[in-house]
Order: sequence, then C-alpha cells, then structure tokens
Amino acid sequence: RACWTGVLVAAEWREAEPSRHSVHFGERILFLYRCVFLIAAILFSASVAQAADPLPSWNDGPTKDAIEAFVTKVADKDGPDFVPRADRVAVFDNDGNLWAEKPFYFQLLFAIDRVKAMAPDHPDWKDKQPFKGAIEGDMKALAASGERGLLELLAASHTGMSSAEFQKIAGEWLATAKHPHFKRGYTELVYQPMLELLSFLRDNGFTTYIVSGGGIEFVRIFSEPVYGIPPAQVVGSSIKTEYQLVDGEPKIMRLPEMNFIDDKAGKPVGINQHIGKRPIFASGNSDGDFEMLEWTTAGEGPRFGLIVHHTDADREYAYDRDSHVGRLDKALDQAVDRDWTVIDMKNDWNQIFPAAE
Amino acid sequence: RACWTGVLVAAEWREAEPSRHSVHFGERILFLYRCVFLIAAILFSASVAQAADPLPSWNDGPTKDAIEAFVTKVADKDGPDFVPRADRVAVFDNDGNLWAEKPFYFQLLFAIDRVKAMAPDHPDWKDKQPFKGAIEGDMKALAASGERGLLELLAASHTGMSSAEFQKIAGEWLATAKHPHFKRGYTELVYQPMLELLSFLRDNGFTTYIVSGGGIEFVRIFSEPVYGIPPAQVVGSSIKTEYQLVDGEPKIMRLPEMNFIDDKAGKPVGINQHIGKRPIFASGNSDGDFEMLEWTTAGEGPRFGLIVHHTDADREYAYDRDSHVGRLDKALDQAVDRDWTVIDMKNDWNQIFPAAE
Repeated sequence: RACWTGVLVAAEWREAEPSRHSVHFGERILFLYRCVFLIAAILFSASVAQAADPLPSWNDGPTKDAIEAFVTKVADKDGPDFVPRADRVAVFDNDGNLWAEKPFYFQLLFAIDRVKAMAPDHPDWKDKQPFKGAIEGDMKALAASGERGLLELLAASHTGMSSAEFQKIAGEWLATAKHPHFKRGYTELVYQPMLELLSFLRDNGFTTYIVSGGGIEFVRIFSEPVYGIPPAQVVGSSIKTEYQLVDGEPKIMRLPEMNFIDDKAGKPVGINQHIGKRPIFASGNSDGDFEMLEWTTAGEGPRFGLIVHHTDADREYAYDRDSHVGRLDKALDQAVDRDWTVIDMKNDWNQIFPAAE
Repeated sequence: RACWTGVLVAAEWREAEPSRHSVHFGERILFLYRCVFLIAAILFSASVAQAADPLPSWNDGPTKDAIEAFVTKVADKDGPDFVPRADRVAVFDNDGNLWAEKPFYFQLLFAIDRVKAMAPDHPDWKDKQPFKGAIEGDMKALAASGERGLLELLAASHTGMSSAEFQKIAGEWLATAKHPHFKRGYTELVYQPMLELLSFLRDNGFTTYIVSGGGIEFVRIFSEPVYGIPPAQVVGSSIKTEYQLVDGEPKIMRLPEMNFIDDKAGKPVGINQHIGKRPIFASGNSDGDFEMLEWTTAGEGPRFGLIVHHTDADREYAYDRDSHVGRLDKALDQAVDRDWTVIDMKNDWNQIFPAAE
C-alpha cells in the first residue's frame, strides 16, 4: 500500500510539475489542487493501513479485545500505561502454544524416527528397550521405559554429533516428516492466530522470544523461517556441549548429559539467564508455563498473561487436566484470580493452522 | 547534521512558497532556484555525513584500514564478500578489551569493596582469610587464599540475594566507586576507540554482543548505557539461580554455586548457547579469548579476528605474556599465522578513554 502510494505520488508530481515556460494562474491552481489531493491520498492510505485487522484469525470478543487493548496501551507513548520499547518483552511457550503437541511432542517423534533410521547400525536395539519400542512404534513400551528410557532415547538420537550436524539431521526430518493425523509437515501445524499475534506484537515494538521446554537447538532450526524469531531469541532446554578440535576443525560437540531443563520453575531462570529482563507479556498452555506466567504478571506496571486452552476436538484436539502431554490444571484454576486471559480455541479462533499451500 | 538540514529545508521552503495572489515569472524562477539549492544542500550534507570518519580515535594505518575494509566488504550487497545482516554477528570480550582490567578485574574490586561494606555484620571476617585480606586491602593475602578463597569472596559478595537486589547493589557501586589509579568511575574507563568500533559495526548492520569471563549479571548493569549493548546481548559467566516465592513475591535468587564459566573453551559454548550463530567478527585481548577467536575465524566466508595488545604504559598499561591479569601469550604468537589483526594501543589509538565530562 505504501508502495502504491509512492508510485501515485511520483506520477502525480511529475504530471503536476509546471513547465518552466508557461506558468500562469490556472496551472498554479491545478498544482495546488493536486498537492491537496496527494496529501489526502497519503492520509487515507495510512488510515486504511491502520484500520486493517492485524488479527484476522481471531474472532471478535473479549479475548481479542483484551489483547488489542493491552498492546495498544503499552505502545501509546502519551498514555499512562506506556512501556518503553526496550522493555516490551514477550515470551511464548512453543509446544501446544505456537504449534501442536499431540499425539506426542514433535521432538519426541523426531527422536523415534531418528532411532528407526539409525537401527540398521545398531542390531542390539531390536531386543532392547526403549529402542525396541521406538523401532516398533510401541508407545506403551516406550512410556514404560520411564524417564531413564526417554533419556537413553534422547542421548542416542540427539548427542554424539556436532551442533551443526544435529541441526542438519533435525532440519532434514522437519522438511520431510508428516504428522500422523494431519498428514502435513510439522512446521505447517503452527497456529495461524499465534503467528498473527507474534507479528502484531513486533509491529508494536515488542521483542518476541520462545521459552520452550523443548531443546533449544531443535527449536532454533525453524524458529526464524516459521515464527520470525531469530536463534538468539530462543530459550529452551539444553544438553551439555563442549568445544573440541575434531581433526583440526573446531566444533561444538553435543554430550549425553543434561545441562538445563527449561520447564516449570526453570522457565523464569532461563528467561533471566538469556534475556536479562522480566517480560511484560507471557503466553503458555500448560502447567509447565505456570511459573513463567507468574513471574511475568507479578511485576509492576502493565502485564499480560495468556493461556491457550485446547477446546477444539474437531479442528485440533481437546484436552487439559487429564492430558499426559501439555497438562493444564493449576494454571487454569488460577487464571481468573490472576487475571490471565484464557483462549478458548474453539470459539476464539476462526482458523487453527495456516491454509495449506 | 540531518537535523540542521531539516531546519534549513523548512525555513527555505516557507520563504520560497509563492503567495497565492502574486505569481509571476520572477518568483517562479526564484522558487525553482531555491529548490535546486535545497536539493544540493541535502546531497552535500549526506555526502559529508558519509565521509565523516566513523573511527576518529583510531590513527590511520593498517589496523584501521583492515577493520574498515572488512566491515565495508561484508555490508556491500553487490560485492563478493557480502554477508546477510542476520549473520553479521560480532562478539567482544569485556575486561581489557572494552574497558580496563588493571590493577585487578573491576568485578573483583567490587567484591572486595562489598566485603568491606558487609564487614560490620560479620565480625569473624577480621581474622579469617580471604575476608581479612579483602578488608585490609592486602592483595597478597587474598591471592594466597587461592581459587577456594576467591570463590568464598564471590559467594559472600555476589550471592544470597535476588537478581534484582544484586543489580541494585552492584549498580550503586559502579555509580560511585573510583579507580585507584585513574580516579575516575569504572564505566569511564572504557576504550573510546572500541566504543566507536561498536557503533561503526552496528551502523553497518552488525549485532554486537559481549562475551565476557565476568559475571553476566554484573556486565548487564552497564552494558546498555555504556556500550549500547542490551542485556539480552550479554554472554558471561554465571552462578546458579533459582526461582523462589519469598513472602509470596517471586524472585530469582542467586545461589552460592557456579553455573557456567565463560572463559577459554567456554566462550564458543556460551556463544552457541546464547546466540545460536557463529560470529564473523571476534575481538579479545587475552588467551582467554583464544578459542572464541579460533571458533569465529575458522568458519567459512569472510571472518575477522581482532586482538587488543596493551602497549601503552603512559596512557594505560603495558602488559602481555607475564601478566597475572589478561595474560596474552598463545594468541599473540599465533596472530600472524591466523591472520588476526593486533591493535597496538600506543600507536593505533590516539585516545584511550572518553574525554572527562
């Protein structure tokens, strides 16, 4: 629109420029008239741009109103709730909040696929849990292997290579693997309304961060192209890494040892470590986000807590208190008292995923 | 300069505007003449702005030339060495590289002053090292207490409070304490040429980070006002922190346990963890920066390694291989082979610190 206006202005201006040798009163009036027209066109164009709905996938109602009112007031430099741009920090959980998380966290599905792909080189895995369960797609056996089993799966699939090599492997999986139910690539299972919200916040001077329980190097592979969030603005769980010279070439090697778990009370710690500022806006969907929401909204000045409540069994999934993935219980109970806004996916969102390409 | 031009344009324009009722040929010529003058003034002003030296505290010579050539070529989108803006990541060590580090790291001087301030509440410290040494200013006794002693000093001065409380305490110290030799505040002992370099890089689309062996929460207190580097762009050593509700109020509490040492081989690890990208420009001054320089400059495409060599005993300090603080030995030996540019402070910088206010 700005571009179109620019062309219009240039064209009108050229047309309007009075010839050097024939200036008279009529042309002068025409020139002034055209100037007025151009200014009107620019003002009109700007007001149209402002009036366009920045959140078209959100249905009108109190949820959308609350978000828009908050963003508008903190960005209004003449208003009482103005927050300087540098302090407009917004944090978003990823799994179940920016993209889907069912039937299992997508990173776990990657780990399983990776173990399957590696299986030919590990004949002993055929009879050994959790690998047997992963290879056979037996999620019950996998779950039965407990935390120790999941850590073994993680170590086998996520460590022992350099950071760059891991990003290549996981990037190839993300580019090709399909979700078992939706039959779409995983990065297509992001929530269209949340993409709009991220852009809306950034357009209003916010810096947007992901604060995920998932692996930091996994999320960083797609955060920039999919969410517009660069790697440096991703906070997540991590394993230990080590700087090594491998055949004379420096590498960041991934070690089979946990470094940091960015979940529950770990989220405010991760935020403080990476961002060094307390956010004013936090968005999550499970009890794993409770402390992040609490930390964000207990600060002084205007604050916003947002919860994605999965209520749409037709278009996505419906789950909360009893779910093994993305359990939402305590945070849902306390949302009203803490003035956190709860998104009812079924009623607040007119679209869930981006339109298929 | 841009502002001055704006005022000029506005004034000329008002003057030049022909009155509606008396348009004739002479005024028209005058109007066009003035338009030409204004355009010329704008172009001239822009060219002056471009020609102004972005590094006035750097003497002409190969060091300055190398820096300017590198920055220019990676920002030239039509050139063979163009690097997209998102990948123009520059990392800077802090102690001895952006500000001075003698006679001791400034953060250690803070710890000592803090222990002195706390001493009245800790009568047992009078007879107990390392506290006795700190209180009496006996640096030899302090050094003799070894790593265990320094960690005790760190724990006493840097932990047991919330992150916000620590920043307040250390911020007050930074605002009032004076350097024993220069008798200036510590944040005035930053290197003017490096401030110019940071701005020059940012003006050319770089994102600038600090990667310090010092404490991340200590450096963050002054990084934004002093260097223009926001908290999220500071990487540093850290202690463990924990999210706690203290009398119902959520806090990030600082625990007496090391979390991460951002020095030597830890620097590439810290960079990878926080930034998630490999820098193309690294600047350090000691062997503690060797791996950061190596990691940065061993990557593909255009790379720049920069070393600050302290050679100016008159205006600052002269030290390298034998210094207990900021030892520069291996990195100096390998600089030529690795094509790292070494700054000779005495000859390359015509000013060391910013002019006193």
